[in-house]
Parts: sequence; structure tokens; C-alpha cells
Amino acid sequence: MNLTRRLVAEGLGTALLLAVVVGSGIMAERLSGANVAVALLANALATGAGLVALILMFGPISGAHFNPVVTLSEAWQKNIPMTEVAPYIAIQIIGAFAGVAAADGMFNLPLLFASEHIRTGPAQWWSEFVATFGLIAVIIGCSRSRPGVTPFAVAAYITAAYWFTSSTSFANPAVTLARAATNTFAGIRPSDTPGFILAQLLGAFAATLLFGWIYSTTPKNSTNGGTITSSDLTKKQC
Amino acid sequence: MNLTRRLVAEGLGTALLLAVVVGSGIMAERLSGANVAVALLANALATGAGLVALILMFGPISGAHFNPVVTLSEAWQKNIPMTEVAPYIAIQIIGAFAGVAAADGMFNLPLLFASEHIRTGPAQWWSEFVATFGLIAVIIGCSRSRPGVTPFAVAAYITAAYWFTSSTSFANPAVTLARAATNTFAGIRPSDTPGFILAQLLGAFAATLLFGWIYSTTPKNSTNGGTITSSDLTKKQC
Amino acid sequence: MNLTRRLVAEGLGTALLLAVVVGSGIMAERLSGANVAVALLANALATGAGLVALILMFGPISGAHFNPVVTLSEAWQKNIPMTEVAPYIAIQIIGAFAGVAAADGMFNLPLLFASEHIRTGPAQWWSEFVATFGLIAVIIGCSRSRPGVTPFAVAAYITAAYWFTSSTSFANPAVTLARAATNTFAGIRPSDTPGFILAQLLGAFAATLLFGWIYSTTPKNSTNGGTITSSDLTKKQC
Amino acid sequence: MNLTRRLVAEGLGTALLLAVVVGSGIMAERLSGANVAVALLANALATGAGLVALILMFGPISGAHFNPVVTLSEAWQKNIPMTEVAPYIAIQIIGAFAGVAAADGMFNLPLLFASEHIRTGPAQWWSEFVATFGLIAVIIGCSRSRPGVTPFAVAAYITAAYWFTSSTSFANPAVTLARAATNTFAGIRPSDTPGFILAQLLGAFAATLLFGWIYSTTPKNSTNGGTITSSDLTKKQC
Repeated sequence: MNLTRRLVAEGLGTALLLAVVVGSGIMAERLSGANVAVALLANALATGAGLVALILMFGPISGAHFNPVVTLSEAWQKNIPMTEVAPYIAIQIIGAFAGVAAADGMFNLPLLFASEHIRTGPAQWWSEFVATFGLIAVIIGCSRSRPGVTPFAVAAYITAAYWFTSSTSFANPAVTLARAATNTFAGIRPSDTPGFILAQLLGAFAATLLFGWIYSTTPKNSTNGGTITSSDLTKKQC
Repeated sequence: MNLTRRLVAEGLGTALLLAVVVGSGIMAERLSGANVAVALLANALATGAGLVALILMFGPISGAHFNPVVTLSEAWQKNIPMTEVAPYIAIQIIGAFAGVAAADGMFNLPLLFASEHIRTGPAQWWSEFVATFGLIAVIIGCSRSRPGVTPFAVAAYITAAYWFTSSTSFANPAVTLARAATNTFAGIRPSDTPGFILAQLLGAFAATLLFGWIYSTTPKNSTNGGTITSSDLTKKQC
Repeated sequence: MNLTRRLVAEGLGTALLLAVVVGSGIMAERLSGANVAVALLANALATGAGLVALILMFGPISGAHFNPVVTLSEAWQKNIPMTEVAPYIAIQIIGAFAGVAAADGMFNLPLLFASEHIRTGPAQWWSEFVATFGLIAVIIGCSRSRPGVTPFAVAAYITAAYWFTSSTSFANPAVTLARAATNTFAGIRPSDTPGFILAQLLGAFAATLLFGWIYSTTPKNSTNGGTITSSDLTKKQC
Repeated sequence: MNLTRRLVAEGLGTALLLAVVVGSGIMAERLSGANVAVALLANALATGAGLVALILMFGPISGAHFNPVVTLSEAWQKNIPMTEVAPYIAIQIIGAFAGVAAADGMFNLPLLFASEHIRTGPAQWWSEFVATFGLIAVIIGCSRSRPGVTPFAVAAYITAAYWFTSSTSFANPAVTLARAATNTFAGIRPSDTPGFILAQLLGAFAATLLFGWIYSTTPKNSTNGGTITSSDLTKKQC
């Protein structure tokens, strides 16, 4: 698969992911009145369901990382070459902002505008550490044993993580940056992004280290991005 | 599989899809009081769950398009012959109206009556473009790599799309026309349908073009309708 | 698999199904205050999730019918011998009442007591016809093409059917009878059961006839009860 | 797979499970205002989704028991050696308390503090018996016929069991002990734990006995922990 095609897939997938996260947040807030639990329920279900579709449709092309810390973790495991890390992360960030703009446009809002949603403090940083640790752990655990289920496992994990963390689990630096550009349900104040991103990097680092050891007896580069083996494209059908 | 049987399957499937969409919308509106978020949550879950069942049960016969733009996209990709496009679309539209009547009948309402639900404007047209683009992208992406998961991916995508678009994602011209014939939760004013349908056609066109390029290295006509390979009927069991 | 073991599985499975339906209905009504939509959402999700587990765990033993019209339809298709129809239906009814008693006991209620929940009239009978037609159609459609997905398709269908029918989709004569014995959320007045059961029988008859024709080119007795092929027990793992 | 690695996986998995259960309970209670049904809906969905991810990611290493009665049942079926029972149960309990502390920390609460949530009486004990009986039955039923679906079946079962039992289905002695250490939505008064644990042991015993008979014609030690066969690690991909 040539790199251009993979970067287009990666950027488009990240854009659609942000459109799902931000768009469903706006819709949920508008319709739910004062009941934030109902809004988060809708937001979590839409995000989880959207992830199933997005990882399945883009996984065979780009690995469907949609997330700089996933790309870094995959590169560390030698599942993608180091030279592709920078272009992957660049296109993820560009796609993420494009997706926020697409969502805001669907709801008649200014395309990009700074969020005022405060998300900070040790409890939320610890949440982001745990959320990202778990995400990377899910990806490594599934991709080294049953890669075909990874899309479902990741989507299920994120659905749960919206609820079990006080930060609602961003777990993704590109998503964090782009969500600073929408003053809606899913937003985050720009000045709060560094704390989130640092916690995400640490969580991803810890998970890659620990799960590299736990799964050390299985072949290292068995998958690309944890969603599908390259042979899946030839043998077809689950 | 002869054409009559496939058209019966396609028409019946589209009818059941509309019964699910419109029926669950009526039930949701009746039970949820003023909380529109709870109503849309029920409507989205019922539609997603219904789609899983309907695509799995009719996919092996007709491809389970239930949607004129899916049929057009499949024909463009040469997955079904051009001569079948017109009968497919005709039976989809007939089935869609029959499904609306079936649902209205289940709730003691006049079988067909014009909707007064206003759905118009650039934000909603952009929503329909994005929604349909994503739907066709999911179908092409999955059917060319892991067709067995397509039913789940499509259902998950539509569940998310109800929430992340301001139009609640019709993404289907036959569905759009038929939903103009019920003045309930899922309805759309007849005069608003052309804008929706045009946006849907453009979204489907863009997705078929782009994903035809992204997935150009995989065999073109590997599936019929993106849900199951013909060999699945002989080899049995996932 | 000997008949005793299969009947124990079928009775126990039906009991657990009723425990899920009735128990989650009681819990939902108690916790949801006046919001019936939230209660039905919980009831539908619990029933759908419960069905996934129950069909997967009992399917390989008894076929996991849990439903007299499924048994009749399977017998008509020659998937189970006629001589087993009566014992299957008998144990399903016994199991259903036991399950209602188990659920009522979990919530400190009298084990069996007549319901006063009125469910009658042409709109609800038409709902039961459609609901049962769809259920049998899902089972035949999936079991003749991809039997491994039937448990998921049936569960998804019932989740949707709780919402798109005005009767909340009983679609099962044994369930209907037993739900007359609990005056809770899921109950039905005993005098309303004949109308429901007649509609269910007609829906099952129509679906078996029509889908027997639609799927007539595939082998007839390819599965037992539509959930798993007998070879699945030997070859293991999806 | 050496024992250390498996114990780390088992402990970490149990910790994450408790983080999901307790964390989502806190978030749900905080956001849902007075509507307990919405809170339990969020709690149940988060737990079910979390279980899908956790069992898929840890199953291939440790069997993903996360539960002393599962370990006891597996040992009785000779799927794991008797000598591993004590270390498994010890690490599950340690992990469970660590998970509660992690969750409380994510929400700025004291890490461990005694619950005052009263959960007692025959109806709740009967609920725990039924809940645990069903859980062990799901595991045995699936792991002896289609082990690849066990993670999904267990998660679906627990989602349903939160709703159909009056105890909200703890079904796990390690979880019960640890939930006594958080005075939040998911808590249980320490003095109420013995009744729950006794009921759980009896339910697990009954299910292992009965399902050992129902599934007696299939090979006994076909899986480790009911989630995956050892050959899955070599043959790869569902």
C-alpha cells in the first residue's frame, strides 16, 4: 500500500472520528436539556459505534491509528517504520482540526473557535494516564492474539472510558488539540491541553513497556496498527 | 439467485427498515415526554440494531442495499449489472412506503400522511453530504477487505450518524421520500426532500470516487453489495 | 445429544430469558420514575444482551428456540423431528413460568400473580404479527447463510422490535403466557393473551412460507435451530 | 506462558475491571441527578463494554477470570492446575482493591473508605445466586462450543444481569470485597459482603455441576478460562 494512500486514509479517518466526537456532543447537549448523563450516554455510544465503523473501514489501509500515541507505540514495536511517524502524526493533527470544523459546520457554528471548557487538575491527569494506558494495552493485547477483534475491543474500551474516568477519556493528543478549537460539549480549554497530552504520553509509554513484556512470547510485528494482518487482504472474509 | 427473489428480498428489507425507523420514532416520542435526547437515543439504538438483523438476513440474497445510492455506487463499481439498477431502486421506493404504512398502522395512525417536520438549510444539507459520504465509504472499505463485518460496521455507523449530524442522517433517497409520508418523529416535510436527496447523491458520488482510489489495489468485484461473498453460501459459518 | 439434556437446556434457557425480561422490567420501572422511555430502553438493552448470552450458551445443545413458534417453524422445515415438538413446547412453557417466578422472587414480589396490564386491539395484534414474522425471518435468513451470526442477529432484532412495535414485541407464545403471571412492567392481562398468540402464529406461518421460498436454493436442514451447525462442536472456535 | 506473567495479567485485568465498575458508577451518579435508571444504564453499558475489551486483551494470557469463583470452577473442570488457584485468587483480590483506589483517585475521593450502601436480605441473596449461576453457565456453555465468542457472551450477560437482579449482580467475591471499600454508587456495606459471597459460591457450584452434565459429551479441558484456545495464539485471526 503506498504511503500517500495510507496518509489520506489516516487523515480522513481522524477527521471523521472528530466529526463523530464533536458533532454528537453538540447534538447531545442541545437535546438533553439539563441532563448531562443522558448527553454523555449519547456521546459515548456515538463515539463507540463510530469507532467500530472507522477502524474497520480504514484499518486495512493505514492501520487506523487516528492517534499520535498509537503511532509512536507501533513504531516502538517496529510495526511501522520510524520514517513514517512524522507524516502520520502531521496528517492526524490536520485531519482532527478538519473534522472539528466539519462538525461545527453541520451545526451552524463557527468552524473553529477556542473552547472555554475547563479540564485540569491531578485527578483528570491521572484519568488521562489510566485511559491512555488502557487504550494502548487493548491494542497490543488484541493485535498480538486476535487482531480481527481489535476494532470491536477498542470501540468498547473507549465507550467504557468515557464513563470511568473524570476526564471522559481523550486519550489522544491530536484529538485533545483539535477539541480545544470548539467551544461545545466536547471542548477543552487550550491552556489545559499540555497537562492532558503529557499524561497521555506517559500512559502510552507505560503500556507499551508493560505489554511488550506480557506479550513477549508472541511475534512482534505480527500486525500493522493492530487491526488486521496484511494477509487478510488476500484471504478475505473473517 | 434469480432476480425476482432478490427484488422481493430488497423490497421486504427496505419495508422492514422503514418500519423500524418510523415505528421506533413514534414509540420514542410517545414515551419520552419532552426529553428529545432520550427519544433519539431509543430511535438510534433501534435503527442500529434493526440494521444488523436486516443486513444479515437479506444480504446473502439481494446484497441488502435498501438504498438507491448504494445501488448506484455498486453498479458504478460493476458489482451489479446496470440493468438491475432501475428495478432495485423501484422496489426500494415501493418497499419504503409500505414500511411507513406498516409502522403507522402499528400505532393506530393514518397509514400515509404528509409530514410537517421542517428539515432544511445548508447545515443540514452538509450533514446529509457527510452522512452519505461516510455510509458509502464504510460499505466500500469493509466489503473490499472483510465483507463479513460489513453488516456490523454499517449498523454502527448509522447509529453514530443519527447523533453526529444535525439532520439525524437520512443518507438514503428512498428513506427520505417515504419519511415525507408520516407526520411523526422521523418525518420530513415533502418540500424539503429534494435538498436532502441532492446532498445524498453528491456524498455518494464523492465517496465512490475517493474510496475507489484508496482501495484500488484490491479486487473490484469481490462482493455483491458489500455484505457477503457468494462463496459464503456454500462454505457456511463464519 | 440426547433428548433429556436438550430439554433441560431448552427449559433452563427459557426460564433465564423470562427472568431477564421480567426482572429488568421491574428494575427499570422502579428506578426510572415516570420516564417510561428510559425504562423501556433499559428493558430492551437487558433483553437484547441477555439473548446474546442465552442463545450462545444453549444453542449448541438445544438450538435455543425458547419459543413455541420457532420450534414449529423448525419442525416444518424438517430441522427437528415432529416427535420432539410437543416436549419442546411443554418444557418452554414450564420454563417460562419458572423464570417469571424466579424474577418476581428476586424483587420480593409474590412469585406468580395475574397481570392487569391491558394489551389488546388491532394495532397491537398487527404489531405481534409483524414482530413474529420478522423474528422467524431473521432466524431462517441467518441460519441458512451464516448460522454463526444468528445469536447476534436475533438479539439485535428483538432489541429493535421492543421499540418499533406498539406491543413491545412479545413474538413468543410461551413468553406471552408466562408474562400474564406477573403484574409488573412486562405483564399482560390473561384475557389479552389469545389475541397475541394468534397473531404470533400467523406471523410465524407467513415468514416460514415466504422465507422458505426466498432461501429455497440453499440446503434445507443445514442447521439445528438456526444457531450453530453440528460440526461446530467438533471443529471449535469461530 | 509462565505463571508470573499470567498473574500480572490477572491482577491488572481485575484492577481495570474494578476501575470501570466503580469509576463509571461515580460518574453516573454525579451526572444523572436524581434519575437512578439513567445512572444504572450508564454503569451497565460501561461495565459491559469494558468487559469486552478486558477479556479480549487478557484472555490469551491468563484466561481473564478476574473472579475467584470462575477460577474455582475452572480448577474443578481441570482447566487450570489446583496449585494455581490460591495465587490467582490472591492477585484478583489485590487487583480489585487497587482498581477501586485507582477509580476513587480519578474522582478526587479518598482511595479506600468503607461503604454504607446497604445490600442484604433473601431477595438479594437469591439474586446473587441466580446471577453467579448464569455467569458460570455462560462461561462453560460458550467455552466448550465456541470459545471465541465467550468475551462477548460474558459481557452481554453482565450488562443484562445489572438489570434483571435486585442486587445489580456482583457475581464475584473479589469484586464484592473491593466494592466494600468505596462509599459510592457501586459500594456495598462491609457487613453485607458475607451473604453475597456465600450466595455466589453456591450459584457457581450449582452451575458447574449442572453444566458439566449438560456439556459432558464435549472434551473437558478444551479451553483455558473459557476465552480462547491455546492454538489461537499460533493460528491467529478469527
